[in-house]
Amino acid sequence: MIFASDNWAGAAREILDAVARANDGLAPSYGGDELSARVEARFCEIFERDVAVFLVATGGAANGLALSVTTPPYGMILCHEESHVQMDECCGPEFFTGGAKLLPIEGFAAKLSPETIAAALKGFPERPPHGAPPRVLSLTQATECGAVYKPGELRALCALAHERGLRVHMDGARFANAVAALDCAPADISWKAGVDVLCFGATKNGCIAAEAVVFFDRDAAADFAFRRKRAGHLWSKQRFIAAQFEAYLKDGLWLRLAARANAMARRLSDGLAAVDGVEIVYPTEANEVFAAMPATMAEALRRAGAVFYPWATPGDPTGGRLHRLIASFRTTEEDVDRLLALARSAA
Amino acid sequence: MIFASDNWAGAAREILDAVARANDGLAPSYGGDELSARVEARFCEIFERDVAVFLVATGGAANGLALSVTTPPYGMILCHEESHVQMDECCGPEFFTGGAKLLPIEGFAAKLSPETIAAALKGFPERPPHGAPPRVLSLTQATECGAVYKPGELRALCALAHERGLRVHMDGARFANAVAALDCAPADISWKAGVDVLCFGATKNGCIAAEAVVFFDRDAAADFAFRRKRAGHLWSKQRFIAAQFEAYLKDGLWLRLAARANAMARRLSDGLAAVDGVEIVYPTEANEVFAAMPATMAEALRRAGAVFYPWATPGDPTGGRLHRLIASFRTTEEDVDRLLALARSAA
Amino acid sequence: MIFASDNWAGAAREILDAVARANDGLAPSYGGDELSARVEARFCEIFERDVAVFLVATGGAANGLALSVTTPPYGMILCHEESHVQMDECCGPEFFTGGAKLLPIEGFAAKLSPETIAAALKGFPERPPHGAPPRVLSLTQATECGAVYKPGELRALCALAHERGLRVHMDGARFANAVAALDCAPADISWKAGVDVLCFGATKNGCIAAEAVVFFDRDAAADFAFRRKRAGHLWSKQRFIAAQFEAYLKDGLWLRLAARANAMARRLSDGLAAVDGVEIVYPTEANEVFAAMPATMAEALRRAGAVFYPWATPGDPTGGRLHRLIASFRTTEEDVDRLLALARSAA
Amino acid sequence: MIFASDNWAGAAREILDAVARANDGLAPSYGGDELSARVEARFCEIFERDVAVFLVATGGAANGLALSVTTPPYGMILCHEESHVQMDECCGPEFFTGGAKLLPIEGFAAKLSPETIAAALKGFPERPPHGAPPRVLSLTQATECGAVYKPGELRALCALAHERGLRVHMDGARFANAVAALDCAPADISWKAGVDVLCFGATKNGCIAAEAVVFFDRDAAADFAFRRKRAGHLWSKQRFIAAQFEAYLKDGLWLRLAARANAMARRLSDGLAAVDGVEIVYPTEANEVFAAMPATMAEALRRAGAVFYPWATPGDPTGGRLHRLIASFRTTEEDVDRLLALARSAA
Repeated sequence: MIFASDNWAGAAREILDAVARANDGLAPSYGGDELSARVEARFCEIFERDVAVFLVATGGAANGLALSVTTPPYGMILCHEESHVQMDECCGPEFFTGGAKLLPIEGFAAKLSPETIAAALKGFPERPPHGAPPRVLSLTQATECGAVYKPGELRALCALAHERGLRVHMDGARFANAVAALDCAPADISWKAGVDVLCFGATKNGCIAAEAVVFFDRDAAADFAFRRKRAGHLWSKQRFIAAQFEAYLKDGLWLRLAARANAMARRLSDGLAAVDGVEIVYPTEANEVFAAMPATMAEALRRAGAVFYPWATPGDPTGGRLHRLIASFRTTEEDVDRLLALARSAA
Repeated sequence: MIFASDNWAGAAREILDAVARANDGLAPSYGGDELSARVEARFCEIFERDVAVFLVATGGAANGLALSVTTPPYGMILCHEESHVQMDECCGPEFFTGGAKLLPIEGFAAKLSPETIAAALKGFPERPPHGAPPRVLSLTQATECGAVYKPGELRALCALAHERGLRVHMDGARFANAVAALDCAPADISWKAGVDVLCFGATKNGCIAAEAVVFFDRDAAADFAFRRKRAGHLWSKQRFIAAQFEAYLKDGLWLRLAARANAMARRLSDGLAAVDGVEIVYPTEANEVFAAMPATMAEALRRAGAVFYPWATPGDPTGGRLHRLIASFRTTEEDVDRLLALARSAA
Repeated sequence: MIFASDNWAGAAREILDAVARANDGLAPSYGGDELSARVEARFCEIFERDVAVFLVATGGAANGLALSVTTPPYGMILCHEESHVQMDECCGPEFFTGGAKLLPIEGFAAKLSPETIAAALKGFPERPPHGAPPRVLSLTQATECGAVYKPGELRALCALAHERGLRVHMDGARFANAVAALDCAPADISWKAGVDVLCFGATKNGCIAAEAVVFFDRDAAADFAFRRKRAGHLWSKQRFIAAQFEAYLKDGLWLRLAARANAMARRLSDGLAAVDGVEIVYPTEANEVFAAMPATMAEALRRAGAVFYPWATPGDPTGGRLHRLIASFRTTEEDVDRLLALARSAA
Repeated sequence: MIFASDNWAGAAREILDAVARANDGLAPSYGGDELSARVEARFCEIFERDVAVFLVATGGAANGLALSVTTPPYGMILCHEESHVQMDECCGPEFFTGGAKLLPIEGFAAKLSPETIAAALKGFPERPPHGAPPRVLSLTQATECGAVYKPGELRALCALAHERGLRVHMDGARFANAVAALDCAPADISWKAGVDVLCFGATKNGCIAAEAVVFFDRDAAADFAFRRKRAGHLWSKQRFIAAQFEAYLKDGLWLRLAARANAMARRLSDGLAAVDGVEIVYPTEANEVFAAMPATMAEALRRAGAVFYPWATPGDPTGGRLHRLIASFRTTEEDVDRLLALARSAA
């Protein structure tokens, strides 16, 4: 009954097999190999567009590096106050950008809206060189609270950003879960909606350590390769990241894994909603469930072996009763049902 | 009728004379001169304590450098959302600290309270190494909205900060105005209240370019000298900053200049409060007046030659009708009365 | 006939198997798993001392992070002018440290000596805060030119560094090759010789992506965890790095792999030395051969399928005829002998 | 008998008077004043070209900021191993650029030559993204060892730099001394020779604190204003720097002050050259004299009240007997002759 994080789940069998296969023979280092080239071409297919792709091992690296080529070091990045870049990367974006400022913005279910963004920008009128000039809007898809932006929502957000001179960064640590949930094309919630650079996560969804930074305008990525190297994020044996992606993107594996996690979260959410004293606080649209429950119930579940964490953020509307439960591609119906049974007896 | 900024006022005569006097003879460079040593001793007297003092030319440098030795590069600085470090230094604190995060917090009149700080911290429980660990509370005295913290308020804020393991930085760009307003000892609103490092401003209050970073614990300043040099903020002819401070701190000049500015702001605030359609939005406790007025009135005043700026911030409670009018040591009663007469006719 | 880099070789079978095994079951993320704890304990055994160990994926990350906790951002790092930190990390050390300075020093075979270090330091007498204060001596073992420091040499270098107030960083990307070559205990060429922090490489010697930063004084590593996270170098599925190390350090695998590579380099070096027109420029003490050869010979070898690179550095004593040939754990006697035969016919 | 530094000399009377005059009336802050605009126009006249000018208070700030817009944070700056940016700014260039690398190069009298630059570059062939790509050549005029580059020398150096894709930064802390020595137009040793950005020093030559960063291509300065603000180097009362420059550049004051200092250095150099046991090590071409003398003589001079410093650098060819004596605009013939008399008696 592990609902602690999708990161606990390890890797899918197909991913491990691909890594082992990639080990046959010698191959050029630092991404000069054929496998890396194939993966780049595959991303162009997936996104129906010529894109520049850079593979790294962690989401923090992907976000930080992507932001570092999107804002100058004195620029401002608008993000949700519960976003990963703001809450969970220990000042990573500030480090990679050389000191850019993050402006945290409120919003239900970790979502931003044109209204909250416009309100935030109102306080920062152009008065160079005093205030940090807003340069980037950072969105997370699916959000840190398990919600999903629809294509139309993204188009409105990106249009506002571009109108104000901001570029749009998308933290897609759970991009696969969003695509699976929306049953749309990857392009629909990325460049077609106005996203400039996407951090396409794969680690949480069955890879070992694999994230791709995807630039929809090749020119915008001009010096990314230098920055990745400088930050120690270019592997000498880069083919081992590429191998993960080759398998991940083959025959829809990535969407099958995500759909599985989403379905388990749905089952969990529906079940919990029916339990006395439990409230589903944010809509369960991807693979995360945010449930408010009595402390006694949370304690009883943990004593019985369930693993999940309280969700403490500046925006918590429940006064400390909020918990996050995450499903992964490895979560089983038995896991879910056992937790639900426990919850019902603790109610 | 210049109410644009105390920075428009130039320098007091005594300050200029001191600079000219400091030019006699040759003197060791980079702060090795006798005048610099005398000024350091004078600060110890003013603050009734052994302090470490470093002189620089701008408030942005003082704040940035002070913060850089107070937080590690991955630490979090709590500040008001309208504070100068957040709104007006173009990512200076992020630059000097090497990437620390500023957490902007709301509050009336640009003031923080134990309640708003505790609420902000609640969203950042200890979970190393994920969230940026809170390390500094930054307060501004007088605040950017012309309010003044009383000694008791500061003691409560600093106690909370220390209890949570944060150190306290005070942006004292208008420290003189606060001391003059409270009629207290400088120590009462600095180290005796719990402030760890104070940026003691003098530029806005009659100097050319003179700010002092005052550490109340000498050990906390250990590597400040290297950081000041690295940032290009050690003058080769450092005695010319020291000369300004010698005059500024002599015979209470600093408090006389500040009291003058405060009195003019008070006269302006009282006069405006009596004008139809004008509302004094924040209490006028130092040398700044924040007045909401109809757009037609603001326009009429500006056409007649008055200079002052709208005050657009994330926290503006007036929906865009808020204006800031600042008095300086050079503001005259005639300036004030002329503006009041114009406001009355525009009402 | 790949002699381009040990990075071309992929991973040893035992390493891949260990990664696959680590995938069984779910495990805490971000290094909170049991396997990570076991590996830390294993490092204490290997080094016969209580050490603090941090696992990352690349040598650039290991070096940069290790240096960032060893020098302040205004400090100076002494290194060889051909060292990896100076030549091959695209300003990584400057990035991670927040702006420290590298002082490149000459020396045969990429080795530093007490004499060259003392000479370099002579130009930087203490005159705070002007010059960047020397804080770290960075050594590479084995060196970038395939030489190995003997324990006595290291003791002399570290003694000089400590005497001058510098700490000692060792870039051990090929530490295994050095231990295998010297047939000594790991402690003999690390902490017993005076090394303060070691970047213990495993990637080049048969891992996928695995490097360990080993602090011999636990206190010196105080904030490493925050810095690793901030830089995006903490994996969410950290156990997959730990798994590589468990296998690498088990039953002497790491030394067997290194000994194999060393032996192949020795065979290659001895063979080439006997070829007319070829000169072995630096002593072949680990797994790298530095050979000066006529351009026609290099061309002939490459046409026949051999892969290796010219070695262009500021210290090249051959005027452009120098080539680097690297052996890995996968290099075979057939590879070597085929290259030698080709060289002889091209002579 | 102060020959310690030109920084000991304080300010010229005309400079102080101009500062006092600038204090009349109120004026827009942060450089929005008329005086600042006039000074910018004056620089265009002086350099016979449309230039972008930014005023700051220190040479370290000027160099650091100029470099920060000239190289990306992962770029390499070629400079002399005794240059101020390398030896005397406590990692300032690394700080301002966000981590660029300085490559120190040898050369007599702190001068670079096409040969030494080409040799240095040879070790850094293009192999992105591994080595830091060379992006800037930094020259000092007059050099830190009192030598002066002739226009033809500069043209050759800049041509080589541009050919290799580098831009040229000139540290002109003693630019006035060089212009006075060469009796050329300022344009001849700046943009006409190929310099891209010049740090035009005035502090050492009679100002209080005044340096100008001059971009000969306006576009290259695009984001300088943000970077200056971020670093705390935009004064709120910026007109007080502008006032210094107005006087400095009026009626040739800057060249008269420099010529005076140069003449005194010449007198000192000629005199010392005739003293037994003294050797003038570098040609005295500006206002600095580098003399090797017996330790007993140096000691005798200091006992008698002379102030000057030993010159310890990596490039010292005298084995520790080298001393630097600097003349300023305030140095008198009596000062010089008294020192010469003492030297003769100590010989």
